[in-house]
Amino acid sequence: MSRIDQVLARIDSNLDDSLNRLFDFLKIKSISADPDFQEDCEAAANWLARELTEVGIAASVRRTDGHPMVVGHRKTGKPGPHVLFYGHYDVQPVDPLELWDTDPFEPRIVTREDGSKVIVARGSADDKGQLMTFVEAARAYMEIAGDLPLDITVLFEGEEESGSPSLEPFLIENKDELSCDLALVCDTNMWDEDTPAIAVMLRGLVGEEITVKAASRDLHSGYYGSAATNPNHVIAKIIADIRDENGTITLDGFYDGVIDMPQDVTRMWDTLGMTAEKFLGEIGLAVPGGEKDRTLLEQIWTRPTAEVNGMWGGYQGAGSKTVIPAEAHAKFTFRLVGDQDPQKIQASFRDYVRSKTPQDCSVEFSSHGANPALRLDFDMPALAQGKKALQDEWGVEAALIGMGGSIPVVGDFKTMLGMDSLLIGFGLADDQIHSPNEKYNLKCFHKGIRSWARVLDELAQG
Amino acid sequence: MSRIDQVLARIDSNLDDSLNRLFDFLKIKSISADPDFQEDCEAAANWLARELTEVGIAASVRRTDGHPMVVGHRKTGKPGPHVLFYGHYDVQPVDPLELWDTDPFEPRIVTREDGSKVIVARGSADDKGQLMTFVEAARAYMEIAGDLPLDITVLFEGEEESGSPSLEPFLIENKDELSCDLALVCDTNMWDEDTPAIAVMLRGLVGEEITVKAASRDLHSGYYGSAATNPNHVIAKIIADIRDENGTITLDGFYDGVIDMPQDVTRMWDTLGMTAEKFLGEIGLAVPGGEKDRTLLEQIWTRPTAEVNGMWGGYQGAGSKTVIPAEAHAKFTFRLVGDQDPQKIQASFRDYVRSKTPQDCSVEFSSHGANPALRLDFDMPALAQGKKALQDEWGVEAALIGMGGSIPVVGDFKTMLGMDSLLIGFGLADDQIHSPNEKYNLKCFHKGIRSWARVLDELAQG
Repeated sequence: MSRIDQVLARIDSNLDDSLNRLFDFLKIKSISADPDFQEDCEAAANWLARELTEVGIAASVRRTDGHPMVVGHRKTGKPGPHVLFYGHYDVQPVDPLELWDTDPFEPRIVTREDGSKVIVARGSADDKGQLMTFVEAARAYMEIAGDLPLDITVLFEGEEESGSPSLEPFLIENKDELSCDLALVCDTNMWDEDTPAIAVMLRGLVGEEITVKAASRDLHSGYYGSAATNPNHVIAKIIADIRDENGTITLDGFYDGVIDMPQDVTRMWDTLGMTAEKFLGEIGLAVPGGEKDRTLLEQIWTRPTAEVNGMWGGYQGAGSKTVIPAEAHAKFTFRLVGDQDPQKIQASFRDYVRSKTPQDCSVEFSSHGANPALRLDFDMPALAQGKKALQDEWGVEAALIGMGGSIPVVGDFKTMLGMDSLLIGFGLADDQIHSPNEKYNLKCFHKGIRSWARVLDELAQG
Repeated sequence: MSRIDQVLARIDSNLDDSLNRLFDFLKIKSISADPDFQEDCEAAANWLARELTEVGIAASVRRTDGHPMVVGHRKTGKPGPHVLFYGHYDVQPVDPLELWDTDPFEPRIVTREDGSKVIVARGSADDKGQLMTFVEAARAYMEIAGDLPLDITVLFEGEEESGSPSLEPFLIENKDELSCDLALVCDTNMWDEDTPAIAVMLRGLVGEEITVKAASRDLHSGYYGSAATNPNHVIAKIIADIRDENGTITLDGFYDGVIDMPQDVTRMWDTLGMTAEKFLGEIGLAVPGGEKDRTLLEQIWTRPTAEVNGMWGGYQGAGSKTVIPAEAHAKFTFRLVGDQDPQKIQASFRDYVRSKTPQDCSVEFSSHGANPALRLDFDMPALAQGKKALQDEWGVEAALIGMGGSIPVVGDFKTMLGMDSLLIGFGLADDQIHSPNEKYNLKCFHKGIRSWARVLDELAQG
């Protein structure tokens, strides 16, 4: 039996233990966006550092101004490329909690009607389960071969779900330690449950929160209605007018830098057989809501978006309360593509909001990030090696896909450390990440571990 | 000393005890809209029944399908008109609680910079403090005269702040018991702190809540953005388009039945010296937000309105969460005037919302009331008697005013019991009812008690 086959066999026989370790990790409530869970984020970092060190990747918890980083190293003295593996231990908030079938931090295996099994817990897919596919691959490799096939640095952050404010300063401060030949990032999806994928195109993200303030206090709408400007109406108008009736985003200069895909790429996508019925049917919808003259895959991969992730103002309780609130709020995210400039779009958005804010109101802004879109190098050797490893494991060719979501760290690796990234992940579109009842297919976890073992092996062979 | 002067002197010397009783009442958390406070509403009803009975108005707590009514009677055998006094013991919710300087249910006296004193508590002005002006007037009258000057029935309800669902059935069921010659209602404002007022025009109210549902679950806006319809955007568009750029409400047939005021009435209003600066300046605003071709007093008294009292959808926590929510919500109230038909407006609103709801969404409606506007009879003898009593107490002529708010019970009294109402209240525009730090001026409370003693005396003299 070849060494890689021995490693794969060890992964198979280790699976129950791998799952137990993942469950321990999933029980830690590492919600980065909510300050109430700061100690849980610390606990997750500590857990990972212990785990990596036990595997043989000497790791430590490193302070930042926010949640800590976990950095680990394994020097092998081998000639292959030195790779950095990236993942994040923080998870999304869990609200609305009442929509979870069970406690989001009590992981469990659910067997579905077709007999397949899924791991249900907050973070099971995003990103704890994904991150652990790599850690478990390294563990099996160490156990069989006594070492890894190439030099490895590991970087786990704890603020990915809240805009990664500490990442840039940390990369700059530790540039020499973290600069490698290639980054491996496991935070993306497969094409479908049988087809692996490598993400070669990532949209950027601009996140903006606005607060519109009107009267100096909440008002009775019977006394003040019409006369006093209602900030709910102001926010609604700002949201409503940001897209026109064709779904086109109306911000000044918004489409500057948007690049149409080459026809050979869009032709390849046509062969993927994705339809609006298929993509939207699973979530109970049917009609693509974006730009009317763009196909579904264009809308979700190559076109920029404007979405309101949250809005609120006034009374939300039971029954009626005749109030005009003193202020109202909205959280926007824009997904960017091509060469769209995040700073220009942030400025254009703020100008737009100010132009919609009546004289009697003031508006306050806060930024939740501003990152450009990314396209990876199609000719990078690691891309071919990754594809081969994935084909060996899954038996079908890996799809090279776009990504609706953004993974800002990939841009930071490129601009700050001069390092390309290989984005391989085993999530699925129905994993409900950021939603109640998040899950990660057991098959994805198991074959994900196997895939990383193969990828490391391929990369080491050059 | 005349009998009324003796009664007024007793009111003055009783004031501290009157305040203590009001404080006991204000401590009861009778929030009718929130089911968590059902027992508190019961407690408030029981407290009132005991209080009335102690005063000499034999009272009982009467069951309804919602919060109970309190009904009391004092038969005097005197020839004057039999009057019914109405008030409500329920109060508005207190959120946002963090904006209260102190506990809303721990009443206290605050001395302001100018030396005047105010009673701060939820319900101090709306309506517990106002209601107690009448009870305390009756108490002083009983103590001095051994009886009241005319037959009195008292009706206190506990659902005024949540649409009064039990009121109509209760009035119908107890029509004989509750039908009197005249209703006295104490739930309105003075013109200003020196000028008493009688409200002769009340706007109606249609309250509607909508829920727009899109995808079958919350979605990741990176994956589904643009493609999946965002219910936040749908709600925003519904809110934004309900008024045009001139502030005109766009619902089909909305202005049917709106009546322009006679010129002599609007001329009288011009003499009141109300300006946008005065009315809006106190709350930090300056520019009337309603129909551009209407004066401020028209906007708040004689024109119908459309206000969003609450809207919400998606993530409201700290930081960013890239979610497209499965549903979003809004609460609307429309103030009606003249002969506007509440049922037609409810139907027109629902048609409008449906027309704005995309194919991929569904919408659910719930009603928070539908009451027409009211104008009182200017020639009613009780109006002249009430004016005289108020002028005797305050030394200036009482203003006959419109009311932005609606008091549906007045319409119910007229249509179900054939009874006119005299609306006299001692609230002020800056009482912050429905807002944090609600207050009631101590002077309003004290002179309000004295005013009711005088009104009873005038009405008894015929």
